[in-house]
Amino acid sequence: MIEPGRLSLNQATVKHLSVTSAADLCARHDIAAIGLWREAVADCGVAAAAAAVRNAGLRVSSLCRGGFFTHQEPAARSAAIRDNVAAMEEAAALGTDTLVLVSGGLAAGSKDISLARRMIADAIGELVPAAARAGVRLGIEALHPMFCADRCVISSLGEAIDLAVQFPAAAVGVVVDTYHVWWDARLAAELARAAGRIVGFQLADWILPLPPDVLLGRGHVGDGVIDFGPIAAGVAAAGYTGYVEVEIFSERVWSAPADETAVTVRERVQNLN
Amino acid sequence: MIEPGRLSLNQATVKHLSVTSAADLCARHDIAAIGLWREAVADCGVAAAAAAVRNAGLRVSSLCRGGFFTHQEPAARSAAIRDNVAAMEEAAALGTDTLVLVSGGLAAGSKDISLARRMIADAIGELVPAAARAGVRLGIEALHPMFCADRCVISSLGEAIDLAVQFPAAAVGVVVDTYHVWWDARLAAELARAAGRIVGFQLADWILPLPPDVLLGRGHVGDGVIDFGPIAAGVAAAGYTGYVEVEIFSERVWSAPADETAVTVRERVQNLN
Repeated sequence: MIEPGRLSLNQATVKHLSVTSAADLCARHDIAAIGLWREAVADCGVAAAAAAVRNAGLRVSSLCRGGFFTHQEPAARSAAIRDNVAAMEEAAALGTDTLVLVSGGLAAGSKDISLARRMIADAIGELVPAAARAGVRLGIEALHPMFCADRCVISSLGEAIDLAVQFPAAAVGVVVDTYHVWWDARLAAELARAAGRIVGFQLADWILPLPPDVLLGRGHVGDGVIDFGPIAAGVAAAGYTGYVEVEIFSERVWSAPADETAVTVRERVQNLN
Repeated sequence: MIEPGRLSLNQATVKHLSVTSAADLCARHDIAAIGLWREAVADCGVAAAAAAVRNAGLRVSSLCRGGFFTHQEPAARSAAIRDNVAAMEEAAALGTDTLVLVSGGLAAGSKDISLARRMIADAIGELVPAAARAGVRLGIEALHPMFCADRCVISSLGEAIDLAVQFPAAAVGVVVDTYHVWWDARLAAELARAAGRIVGFQLADWILPLPPDVLLGRGHVGDGVIDFGPIAAGVAAAGYTGYVEVEIFSERVWSAPADETAVTVRERVQNLN
């Protein structure tokens, strides 16, 4: 059961809109919260973005995204840490306690996937004190294994949990995105194990055939092959009661009128219940 | 350590060649074995294909492919069983004891991934007696999760092993393909658990960026991001001493002269040692 007040529109679903326009869209369609992206926030400034969301009567469900921790050069690694600290401060200023992490693929010039994973664990450990200070939780998101090489070597929910439980639950959790984890035979068991650690839940469907750019192979809930009910039930059973974000990267969705997109987003999530 | 006598060229790597031409290519380049595809075998007939390979002084490392077990209609399901029995008989006639399975995606019109997995387990169980009669092992291949919806819901080596161990090792094993499993944080542990069950080992590299058709995103060993050494070591530690097939689906490799491809295949696998 996803109560109407838990629905959030991730801004990536209407990526051509500014923060203000996206916030107004949510308000018009009785969508309670919005997931923001740092690039769009930077376009108007953090304070203006926070004011736009507040004036629209919304909450911010999460900020996307921190991460990209896998660098061989110390300077690049330090820059990533600083950037993630800045992202947590932005999240706090925007009124959300969740920073979504896309942790990074193989380090440039390296084929050592274990090294990349250790770099991520090290970076998260280094960020925990700043997360506690900011009152923001780092949400480790497992990305689909097709993004392992170049975006995120954390490729399954189980792996994200294994990483998160090394740190305090108040500072580090996991984000469950249906598009990235639906295929996993261990998903139900891992969701049970994620109890108390889920800090975000994102919905998008898997559309066939994959488009030429696999980053954009998502669709509205119900337009693809994912059976959302059992995943949503597993997330609920794990005790997650936070916002449910719809986050769709799709040229087709992006080319639709934003109001139409918002209507579809609401209807489809309601129909999950 | 992959001894030179264990190298096999999977015919898909030179897909424009007939069985006879591919067999002659292997003989010219001192490649000990060939992995055959049923479509190409059908083009010349099983007996002629067997003779071509024998006359070239080669062995057949495996036959691709059986599987596609996920059907809701009983007639389609029965047809798949019959087709897989025929495939095992072809494998035996060609002198290989390994039939590679691509088990099937979601059943048409269904989003029930657990149902698809049960259909696969049921079909394999039904085929075990015929496998024993033919002296052929069914090799369950985990396909990369990006193929889960439409080709194979068995998406990780662990899942393939969980399935295989329900049946006698003489009849059912797993095929390890680097392209499909390299991303998996559990790979090393699962390879250890696969001891006695590995019936095939296939090599292809993961090339960035993915091409528009993700089926074709493979490359020669060493051209991509996969660290083959640890995977080969894990396969060896699991006791696998059979053929090592190079199987590359790639427009770029297909458009290269076949002799050049064969040279590269040999060199790259030698350099793994």
